[in-house]
Amino acid sequence: MSAELAGIVRTPEPPYYAVIFTSLRNPAPDDGYEATAARMVELAAGRPGFLGVETAREGLGITVSYWADEASIAAWKAEAEHVRAQEEGRDRWYSDYALRIARVERAYDRATSTFGAEP
Amino acid sequence: MSAELAGIVRTPEPPYYAVIFTSLRNPAPDDGYEATAARMVELAAGRPGFLGVETAREGLGITVSYWADEASIAAWKAEAEHVRAQEEGRDRWYSDYALRIARVERAYDRATSTFGAEP
Repeated sequence: MSAELAGIVRTPEPPYYAVIFTSLRNPAPDDGYEATAARMVELAAGRPGFLGVETAREGLGITVSYWADEASIAAWKAEAEHVRAQEEGRDRWYSDYALRIARVERAYDRATSTFGAEP
Repeated sequence: MSAELAGIVRTPEPPYYAVIFTSLRNPAPDDGYEATAARMVELAAGRPGFLGVETAREGLGITVSYWADEASIAAWKAEAEHVRAQEEGRDRWYSDYALRIARVERAYDRATSTFGAEP
């Protein structure tokens, strides 16, 4: 994971969209997984509407990517190299996963200091 | 982390809500952090509207909790013991964080096999 991926993404004011991808890896060799995961982050970062990505794995893997709108997510989902990666994930890499597409309605962070200020 | 937290949460059909909390820890002693984090999961799990939680830390920590509606999130946010934990997080444990409240609109998983089927 590169240093730029280790931080908290600074997103614009809501609304925007989050794609929450949670996964469990098969107990198999890496088999291209890490390289493909890094490539997908690189590809996603160049897409229209991409706002950033946060990722961590501790047994369970959680990757949240942020997008300006649903059209950007749909286009990224259909991108050819990404479609192949999705198939490999389904067929080889993941024993289980869930993908959720959500509309971010409110956000707080340390900079805005509004954590806890309102529901 | 208990075994039951290591998996993918099975949530009902959307819509429901996700609270995406990402954080970076201060490079300080644990200072009660792990115990409080575990206690918060236990407390949250007993709240009305709680649907589950997924969490991982790898430098960056990501915790996504799922809720039936916004009222459940607001009530949990205002719960007294949770308010104290939020204050400790802000004051001592986290060098940075972001909290996002999002409405889950679509979801796919391995069981439903619809990953990739539509935008």
